Amino acid sequence: MTTLRIAGGRVLHPDFSVTTDDVLVDDTSGEIVAVGDVGSGDETLDAEGCLVMPGLVNAHCHAAMTLLRGYADDKPLESWLREDVWPVEAELTDADIRAGTELALVELLKSGTTAFADMYFSMGEVAEAVAEAGLRARLGHGVVGVGKDEDAARADHEESLSFAREYDGYADGRVRTMYTPHSLTTVDEDRLREYVPEAREAGVPLHYHANETADEVEPIVAERDERPLEYADGLGMLGESDFLAHGVHSDATEVDLLAERGTAVVHCPASNMKLASGAAPVPAYREAGVTVALGTDGAASNNDLDLFDEMRDAAMLGKHAANDASAVPAEAVVEMATAGGADALGFDAGRIAAGRKADLAVVDFEAAHLTPTHDAVSNLAYATRGSDVRHTVCDGEVLVRDGEVRTLDEDAVRERAAEHARDLVARAE
Amino acid sequence: MTTLRIAGGRVLHPDFSVTTDDVLVDDTSGEIVAVGDVGSGDETLDAEGCLVMPGLVNAHCHAAMTLLRGYADDKPLESWLREDVWPVEAELTDADIRAGTELALVELLKSGTTAFADMYFSMGEVAEAVAEAGLRARLGHGVVGVGKDEDAARADHEESLSFAREYDGYADGRVRTMYTPHSLTTVDEDRLREYVPEAREAGVPLHYHANETADEVEPIVAERDERPLEYADGLGMLGESDFLAHGVHSDATEVDLLAERGTAVVHCPASNMKLASGAAPVPAYREAGVTVALGTDGAASNNDLDLFDEMRDAAMLGKHAANDASAVPAEAVVEMATAGGADALGFDAGRIAAGRKADLAVVDFEAAHLTPTHDAVSNLAYATRGSDVRHTVCDGEVLVRDGEVRTLDEDAVRERAAEHARDLVARAE
Repeated sequence: MTTLRIAGGRVLHPDFSVTTDDVLVDDTSGEIVAVGDVGSGDETLDAEGCLVMPGLVNAHCHAAMTLLRGYADDKPLESWLREDVWPVEAELTDADIRAGTELALVELLKSGTTAFADMYFSMGEVAEAVAEAGLRARLGHGVVGVGKDEDAARADHEESLSFAREYDGYADGRVRTMYTPHSLTTVDEDRLREYVPEAREAGVPLHYHANETADEVEPIVAERDERPLEYADGLGMLGESDFLAHGVHSDATEVDLLAERGTAVVHCPASNMKLASGAAPVPAYREAGVTVALGTDGAASNNDLDLFDEMRDAAMLGKHAANDASAVPAEAVVEMATAGGADALGFDAGRIAAGRKADLAVVDFEAAHLTPTHDAVSNLAYATRGSDVRHTVCDGEVLVRDGEVRTLDEDAVRERAAEHARDLVARAE
Repeated sequence: MTTLRIAGGRVLHPDFSVTTDDVLVDDTSGEIVAVGDVGSGDETLDAEGCLVMPGLVNAHCHAAMTLLRGYADDKPLESWLREDVWPVEAELTDADIRAGTELALVELLKSGTTAFADMYFSMGEVAEAVAEAGLRARLGHGVVGVGKDEDAARADHEESLSFAREYDGYADGRVRTMYTPHSLTTVDEDRLREYVPEAREAGVPLHYHANETADEVEPIVAERDERPLEYADGLGMLGESDFLAHGVHSDATEVDLLAERGTAVVHCPASNMKLASGAAPVPAYREAGVTVALGTDGAASNNDLDLFDEMRDAAMLGKHAANDASAVPAEAVVEMATAGGADALGFDAGRIAAGRKADLAVVDFEAAHLTPTHDAVSNLAYATRGSDVRHTVCDGEVLVRDGEVRTLDEDAVRERAAEHARDLVARAE
């Protein structure tokens, strides 16, 4: 075993206290060995002037959509999807998705994100990119039923299932998988009744969009006289390891149901604001004991993958929506972006403590916009930017050192992605 | 005259078109001489891979409040002011304000801001700091009447007036002044009736907080049976050069009144969300033809001075509040942060065109989170961070080159501010 000592920084503990301490990491087990006066390690990572925090977790993403960053803004969800996003997505090749995903991974790593959940297509390419980049991911092939005949839908489902089986535990266990029906309205009831039990048999969690827009809730309520999450519950889609994206329009019954079932919710405040989908009832979720994580959604509706932006957005939108400046405070959003995300994705990370996975972000606090530091947690929630991340460590490996990604060639990744984006859009037009 | 050629970048024009062009600047007049094929200049500033945009304008700020960044978060405006902010502000010395302002100036310059409006105390110190730092500012000593006897209030007013007279045109005209009563509720009617005509005589614009919270509107409506801005109009406080901060709770009558009078509004979305003050009717203002600028407010309620954050917040909150993803689009927020701000503050800047003041920000677009560039304006509004600014030019002078502030010693400024912040809080506790 080789040990790495992260030295001289201030450490953010799970109870939100901050002490000046070293963190010792074992790169064989990928775990945190000790926090405090840890002696010397085989190697040292300088954290002087920095805050050492758990790596951020982006719990809902479509990574390759970086290719569509800024392609179509300022449009509502339905027309944005149908007129802009889907026609381009229909042209996506494996190589496009690899290029867009690698661009996303550079962005995630440089802004301190050590784990993410990705629901998209060509997921074998995504898994390979994750293996190469060194971070942790929960991956699923998105199943869309609408507009497909029985055979095509079945083939889509089979692809999702076989990906989930084949890649679970890949890359030394850094890649885990999931079964990802797109949403309760884009996959028919008959198909969900057929597919979900097969996914359960494969032993992977479910992740899907739910209660994202009011338009998506109404037809379910009208047709079934029950709320969308009651419908999902009847289909066996609210398991303890499952996690839902958005959860904007959940009512009190659904909040309680999620709490009872132990199903987590991924709050995506930027995407929800940008597409005018509404504001998720985050205080109600947290009060009821629902695990809440944070996600950026795809870069086309955000338009970045910076979890620091997302923390700020979550706090700001939370206060605005509750008409209460004390709602969704700094500690809540930092917890959502770290421990909440790790719990939602089923990773033993998100907290700096011996025995936990060594997934860490080291944030340079010696910056004008982070001075003074009356409160380090406030600075993280309200004033830190992704570019303040100095080092990113995942599974005990240093993936970003002094702002440079070590596992991917950033310039080559950027150029390749720009080229793929250009070609893709040209093909679709 | 010495000319500076900003070379090889893509230039954002006032009509939001983008072309690859050079910009020639004259450092004597401080003006843009030409845009296009400009020949060689005496000096060159490399803008390859960058977007050259108008310098950002922060149209409502309390710069020295950087000292209170993160000091008290997650509290509503009234108790936050009375229990946390005002007791500390009562302890502020000239040296504190100088230190906090210099910290703000470093932050502003590094994130591409070339002009700001500041309403605070010890404004002579602020003017000196602005002179040294090289940017442009509209400065006013804040007049608070509440809790003061006649003589104390009069002295406060006199100080504001004499500062406004003495410093208007200071630092080669980069410093302009204004008369700044705190708000319509914190300065009594009798005093406003007495003071405002004197400010008019001094020939400076008015800037004050208006319609920031619902709590501030109600007593005026209850007592006078007119809206706050009708009251302000009756006091002669809606002039063509005047500009109001916040304007969250303006109704349709007030929107029309502002348009008629030519008074500008400074939208502060981050502060409004963080203090749960509400969402300003930005689409209504813009439709009516009211000039809308952007402001960060003080760092204690934001918690940074990054106008890129503010643009993103303005777009996001605008869509959420209007329940319309097409509301407050990318071009609108970029305009508010540049031309809108310059117009509100009365500076001939905010647009890249020959004859305008050479106030520019050069943004490095060769970054993962800004790739691809389907739409440069979208990238500015949604994905750029202050840290992407490579060079900042004001009045033809390069104030930031390759991310380094040239007019202030950043490390010394940070250390001094941290020390003052520590001492200040200790004195207040």
